[in-house]
Amino acid sequence: MTDSCNNRCPPLNDDHDVVKMAHGGGGRAMAQLLDDVFRPAFDNPWLAKQHDGAVVEMPGAMAFTTDSYVVRPLFFPGSDIGTMAVHGTVNDLAMCGARPQYLSAGFILEEGLPLATLRRVVDSMAAAAVEAGVQIVTGDLKVVERGKADGVYINTAGVGKVVAPKPVEPTRIQPGDRILLSGDLGRHGVAVMTAREKLELESAIESDCASVVQPVLALLEEGIDVRCLRDLTRGGLASALVEVAESAGLAAEIREVDIPVREDVSAFCDLLGLDPLHVANEGRFIAIVAEQDVARATDILRRYPVSQGAVEIGHFVQGAAGLVTASSMIGASRVIDRLSGEQLPRIC
Amino acid sequence: MTDSCNNRCPPLNDDHDVVKMAHGGGGRAMAQLLDDVFRPAFDNPWLAKQHDGAVVEMPGAMAFTTDSYVVRPLFFPGSDIGTMAVHGTVNDLAMCGARPQYLSAGFILEEGLPLATLRRVVDSMAAAAVEAGVQIVTGDLKVVERGKADGVYINTAGVGKVVAPKPVEPTRIQPGDRILLSGDLGRHGVAVMTAREKLELESAIESDCASVVQPVLALLEEGIDVRCLRDLTRGGLASALVEVAESAGLAAEIREVDIPVREDVSAFCDLLGLDPLHVANEGRFIAIVAEQDVARATDILRRYPVSQGAVEIGHFVQGAAGLVTASSMIGASRVIDRLSGEQLPRIC
Repeated sequence: MTDSCNNRCPPLNDDHDVVKMAHGGGGRAMAQLLDDVFRPAFDNPWLAKQHDGAVVEMPGAMAFTTDSYVVRPLFFPGSDIGTMAVHGTVNDLAMCGARPQYLSAGFILEEGLPLATLRRVVDSMAAAAVEAGVQIVTGDLKVVERGKADGVYINTAGVGKVVAPKPVEPTRIQPGDRILLSGDLGRHGVAVMTAREKLELESAIESDCASVVQPVLALLEEGIDVRCLRDLTRGGLASALVEVAESAGLAAEIREVDIPVREDVSAFCDLLGLDPLHVANEGRFIAIVAEQDVARATDILRRYPVSQGAVEIGHFVQGAAGLVTASSMIGASRVIDRLSGEQLPRIC
Repeated sequence: MTDSCNNRCPPLNDDHDVVKMAHGGGGRAMAQLLDDVFRPAFDNPWLAKQHDGAVVEMPGAMAFTTDSYVVRPLFFPGSDIGTMAVHGTVNDLAMCGARPQYLSAGFILEEGLPLATLRRVVDSMAAAAVEAGVQIVTGDLKVVERGKADGVYINTAGVGKVVAPKPVEPTRIQPGDRILLSGDLGRHGVAVMTAREKLELESAIESDCASVVQPVLALLEEGIDVRCLRDLTRGGLASALVEVAESAGLAAEIREVDIPVREDVSAFCDLLGLDPLHVANEGRFIAIVAEQDVARATDILRRYPVSQGAVEIGHFVQGAAGLVTASSMIGASRVIDRLSGEQLPRIC
């Protein structure tokens, strides 16, 4: 009950202040932190109401998704936990064939987190929300003791209006359907790993973390019959393909030579014995489309910077459900399996 | 990359197995944990699709809310973190005048958490979801290293259809409107505190954690003009009243003698120097209604076990925004303020 904030809280000072247990107490200190850091950043009429939740209009079919973000370190080349917490969740909505609209944000803060760090994370989220065209309309804040929570864990949940005219899901995949990959693989995982281990690389490898909403909506709006979408986060392309193929009851064949991996990423993975097909991405997805749509879908994707490297990498065939094989440059073929174990913990 | 689950995972064994980092890796071990623990408990067609999100029908105005749960210990007299994670979020939706329908669940698990403990938490959530009439349709799972996350942190977000014909919010409160309190105060906070400190009380005080959805929907369905609702979680009745009064631009007067607090709770609070008006509850709320609705609203609330102790405790008046005064039995009056500092951390 002893507290620096007994009658009136002194103004928060970014140079000195840190998160205290009292900031999670539901009282005056929490109100101050919300007013000072969160509401100005996420400024909108829903948060201004200070209610237990937000009331929004959501006619018809809606997609609903959630992700928690525990990436370590909080900041890494090309992105940070706040940006990821928005892009990761809007991307999941896009994968459902939906236009992301509203997000919730739940923060678990570690006592002692510098206020300046918190503000940087919150500002990143706000900027990412603007970029993705979503509003953060409701939230929650908890504080846990020093040594827990690595500074901050963030959960976002999101809702969005389904704009795809047909369900976007693995069961709609037909034998012969083509697999489009939206760009090069592995940069997010490598960027986090180098930041965590403080590895010095000749060239900095930046995370691919980005919203993929625009190209996905463009595919749908321009009438491509998108059978299925899947982002390539934990477990990478390999796990995503195996999962989708399992759900579709089909096998898949990909051409390894057509899968773009930057040379520096490839060298880094070789050095550490990682398979780029298993490394996590935060701005990459696969789109499954009918053969006759491949050329047009690829053209649409290439219009957007986030998917300008889009390329067809293979197709689905009748066969054992979930069997994914990759042919190499010399024509040999290997079975691609989902990630076993934890290749790189705390990547997202 | 060394992992007990390299080619095929051995069946999970509740007696021996614990959560491993690999369970958060997005690969085979995670798939096994989801299949073995989560999907059977939350069994529904949305989760069965194993997609990045759920597609639900949500016509018209919808409430959207989120909360993270970091209560310590995970189990305490009368409830546990899993039950709270469902009831807390459905109650927030009810406070928006909405019928809760779909929840998301984001788990942050600590490496080493016994599988049996995880299953107990998940089963509690599933039971609470059935009780509250909601489906857990989408989720996420992360694992962090030993020493972080106190076993498990849970975030739930929820959506529900707004059924209130008029907005349920502080701005609709008029001078003269009455404050109904749904039951006795303080049991949740005291139950968690005794469990954490392993205090031996003569009589066990059990948490009041419960869904308040039924009585709230009954008020709305039976035509009570509910001006505002607020649950009395962190910061207790005092913080909730001050916040609501501030947003309403009004003052409030309550009669302390009419506020039900169990004798054992009161004695415990006296002993520790706590004010029961500041202690957190997880199954209590206030409903603000017009004077002419008080008798009927009270009757409706008393029909339900969770609000059978409903009682009118005061009213709103013209005055300084947010000024809440309580009159005592002997007629003296004191200003009620929101909680300053962190009275009892990690209560929810």
